Amino acid sequence: MWSATLLTLFPEMFPGPLGLSLAGDGLARGAWALEARNIREHGLGRHRAVDDTPAGGGPGMVMRADVLAAAIDSAAPPGDTRPRLLMSPRGAPLTQARVRSLVAGEGVVILCGRFEGVDERIIEARALEEISIGDYVLSGGEIAALALIDACVRLLPGIMGAAASGVEESFETGLLEYPHYTRPREFEGRAIPEILLSGDHAKIAKWRRDEALRLTRERRPELLKRD
Amino acid sequence: MWSATLLTLFPEMFPGPLGLSLAGDGLARGAWALEARNIREHGLGRHRAVDDTPAGGGPGMVMRADVLAAAIDSAAPPGDTRPRLLMSPRGAPLTQARVRSLVAGEGVVILCGRFEGVDERIIEARALEEISIGDYVLSGGEIAALALIDACVRLLPGIMGAAASGVEESFETGLLEYPHYTRPREFEGRAIPEILLSGDHAKIAKWRRDEALRLTRERRPELLKRD
Repeated sequence: MWSATLLTLFPEMFPGPLGLSLAGDGLARGAWALEARNIREHGLGRHRAVDDTPAGGGPGMVMRADVLAAAIDSAAPPGDTRPRLLMSPRGAPLTQARVRSLVAGEGVVILCGRFEGVDERIIEARALEEISIGDYVLSGGEIAALALIDACVRLLPGIMGAAASGVEESFETGLLEYPHYTRPREFEGRAIPEILLSGDHAKIAKWRRDEALRLTRERRPELLKRD
Repeated sequence: MWSATLLTLFPEMFPGPLGLSLAGDGLARGAWALEARNIREHGLGRHRAVDDTPAGGGPGMVMRADVLAAAIDSAAPPGDTRPRLLMSPRGAPLTQARVRSLVAGEGVVILCGRFEGVDERIIEARALEEISIGDYVLSGGEIAALALIDACVRLLPGIMGAAASGVEESFETGLLEYPHYTRPREFEGRAIPEILLSGDHAKIAKWRRDEALRLTRERRPELLKRD
């Protein structure tokens, strides 16, 4: 079973939104698993310290390599072949292709950083794969982890059910998605494009491809140049 | 006060992770506000339907423009000048610069899509700004909204407190962040770089700039070409 293990200072953030809707239904019936472990259990001393001041000075605190190593080794012992990810704005941008490859595996172990970040040596020593969900800064890795897991879980067998979309949507075809319309036929003077009501399936498919291409060219021309 | 209004089918997902840690402390003492409104309150008929089948056929369901218009108009009446955002993989990629500009305003109204998406006409009719948090597909806009709000809230006055970082981190300088280190001095045979222990602040600042530049060049060269 595909399983996500989270290392965090805020285990109570999980499953959070992933405990509701289709992902939550799947979690409840055991179609996937989630475990949130508190890094502080491996903290040092009476106060279970997990961080310390940055070497070389500067603001904020840095999470200690030794504490994180203990947390990782306890959550993912030798033999656990799941990729170990660190959510970080310095990481490789998450793509739908990476989501697909994670879904094909056995799950993920995710370290959620807080404060200024983690000691660089833990990244090397535990071969963490740094992944970024986008070019902005969050208060910690937890919401980034929620996004990554949500993107994965919706693609697991049996989660989206009969509505099994996921083939024509944004990025799967390398294009942004074409516009959608539904009832009513007219809304505030705006009509549904005639062709969508024509019943001519070939023409509709062509219109949708053309629209997806037009939107991608207008908004994200760099997507057309990839590969 | 900076305030976020969410339109969603899952209001119970909020504040979720934003109710904890520094964002949660700020929310509790009124440093910012969050309101989650259920779109279904504006649903049609006895079952309060919010969606219908796509014009032109295809899998999934599309959220109705008339239902969404009622929800938006009720949450953001004329005079509410906050930007109206639609979280969508078709949108403009969120950047730290857009986060900064949202923080400088009065807040956000965010429509969280579900299913196949929303009727295109609501985007035009209510001048929604489509924003994407990254090039992957989520099960709905809710987790994307959490990410956007978290990125904003941490920059509000008084949220991060004395630890007021946010100036040297990834993207703020146009570069990825330099590596961090803290105690212990040696971890599994790996030492903290000598220069960080030298006490020479000018050399340390130069090392950090060089490392940030090196990491950006290696991992995200396209960031150096921007502007």
